[in-house]
Amino acid sequence: MKIRNNEEISAGDVKMEGASEVKMKMLIGLSDGSENIFMRHFIIAPGGNTPYHQHNYEHVIKVEKNRGIAVDENGNEHEVKKGQSLFVRPGEKHQFRNPFSEEFEFICIIPNPGQK
Amino acid sequence: MKIRNNEEISAGDVKMEGASEVKMKMLIGLSDGSENIFMRHFIIAPGGNTPYHQHNYEHVIKVEKNRGIAVDENGNEHEVKKGQSLFVRPGEKHQFRNPFSEEFEFICIIPNPGQK
Repeated sequence: MKIRNNEEISAGDVKMEGASEVKMKMLIGLSDGSENIFMRHFIIAPGGNTPYHQHNYEHVIKVEKNRGIAVDENGNEHEVKKGQSLFVRPGEKHQFRNPFSEEFEFICIIPNPGQK
Repeated sequence: MKIRNNEEISAGDVKMEGASEVKMKMLIGLSDGSENIFMRHFIIAPGGNTPYHQHNYEHVIKVEKNRGIAVDENGNEHEVKKGQSLFVRPGEKHQFRNPFSEEFEFICIIPNPGQK
């Protein structure tokens, strides 16, 4: 059993092409012994966004703080906020954006992409 | 993309043998189209506990509210609280208990056990 203090985990800039003003903390990942499931905490600063992209694995998401915009595969925008959970299917195009004035934070759980 | 309001999801009693005063909400599961990863929200009432057991899949956990006790495979007790994340390995014996006066709440992510 591994127990981590989330505050002690440093958040790194997400360097992926198309990402802007996004930071990520790996709360539980490979280095904790978790080979199948990764739990990441994302922080999108005001004005920031993730890429509008797709991949062969899903996202299981829970909004942790404030609000943001989730863009679906049809380009439709959905305002999402703390108290909501989301599922993005494998292969489904998606983006998360923060046009608001406070940080948009969520956890995003994925299967180990290296196993897909 | 599926978006759910966590408050609208009803919490059911966990009937598993050895569980006492435990409720569970499926935040994201099979009925949301998530075939590989299930995100559950557990609420253990004061005095309640999950079974001290093991299974062939892991737990990825994030404490959501208040505090509780996590018992590891050696029977050692660890007080855990909001702001902490846990990983329980496949096959590792574990239990969650709430000897405190407020509800102990956490999310617990698992792979679809039917695929193991």
